[in-house]
Amino acid sequence: MAKKIPEKVVSRLTFYHSIVSEFIEKNEQNITSSQLAHRLNIDDSQVRKDFNLLNKVGRCRVGYCPKDLKETIENTLGFSNKRNAFIVGAGHLGLALAKYDKFDNYGLNILALFDTDPLKIDMQINDKKIFHITKLLDLASELNVDIAILTVPRQPAQDVADFLIESGIKYIWNFTPCVLSAPKYIKVWNENLMASFLQFACKEID
Amino acid sequence: MAKKIPEKVVSRLTFYHSIVSEFIEKNEQNITSSQLAHRLNIDDSQVRKDFNLLNKVGRCRVGYCPKDLKETIENTLGFSNKRNAFIVGAGHLGLALAKYDKFDNYGLNILALFDTDPLKIDMQINDKKIFHITKLLDLASELNVDIAILTVPRQPAQDVADFLIESGIKYIWNFTPCVLSAPKYIKVWNENLMASFLQFACKEID
Repeated sequence: MAKKIPEKVVSRLTFYHSIVSEFIEKNEQNITSSQLAHRLNIDDSQVRKDFNLLNKVGRCRVGYCPKDLKETIENTLGFSNKRNAFIVGAGHLGLALAKYDKFDNYGLNILALFDTDPLKIDMQINDKKIFHITKLLDLASELNVDIAILTVPRQPAQDVADFLIESGIKYIWNFTPCVLSAPKYIKVWNENLMASFLQFACKEID
Repeated sequence: MAKKIPEKVVSRLTFYHSIVSEFIEKNEQNITSSQLAHRLNIDDSQVRKDFNLLNKVGRCRVGYCPKDLKETIENTLGFSNKRNAFIVGAGHLGLALAKYDKFDNYGLNILALFDTDPLKIDMQINDKKIFHITKLLDLASELNVDIAILTVPRQPAQDVADFLIESGIKYIWNFTPCVLSAPKYIKVWNENLMASFLQFACKEID
């Protein structure tokens, strides 16, 4: 990302990207800010304001060219910087993330999964192999991976995180409900489903 | 929520809540703002500033009483307003969410799951039964449920959302990668994993 783009705008840009991708699939030659706004239940003016933050948006006669718009969003958000990652924990959540088809498009390459359950080892999920956790150190160094997506249960979460850090992992995207302790040089990104729910519940339902 | 609390503070409050719960489990009688700050790699002053937004925080001699603090966070965030919800889509993600033990504590009761796969119907996940999707209309009205957590694949997502809306669902927490179209009176909360990743990746890795 060349410019500093606020979090909420990044979030909307990924939604615009999804909608524009649909338009391209349907071979549409044009997309307007009101079509995007309508889909997200926001104002047209918000969409145009967000687009002012993009590097350059190719305009068509009555809107934007979907292909150009998609490319501009991708360049702005830096999807072309490919990053390799491991999923640690091949339970339901780990498998769901391994099958999540959007990660590839957004520059996140999941190379493998890790678990301790002998029944899961050597299984393939979406062309990604599940290895025993003891292989992680060697594979991380061999494949140059320093991002781990942590999807183990709460109870072993801290021990597994400690092991990942010892194995050279520098970035942990934490999907466990545990608030991890980590040295300052390790970047932990806590995926906070409960905060997300509370935003949803408090804003919309009360 | 009595007061309007900013999103980032809500997010931190849920983390404080997790850490405080651990302290209570370990029978600790005291917790300090620097213990909380250290765990989240933030400044003590931020923790104290956040606590100023809470209704009332019981202070101990050198910090806070974990039990009081936990209760205050719960009251402030409104965990006691119980809400019933269905999970629609019993794939890996749906099952992971059905097993997510934190929802209960935060006032979200998942009552049942729905799917179309005959092999899954009548299975129990974490004491929640999987029903055929055709039962949803009756069960939603019988159990007074108007929140659906949507975890189906991208391809059928819009059709399933339309069906949910016809069945009386008013709030959709959307975990699919599809940006749903919905009438304005339906509240859709898009869980945006890609935006989350981009925040993580752009801020921390570039």
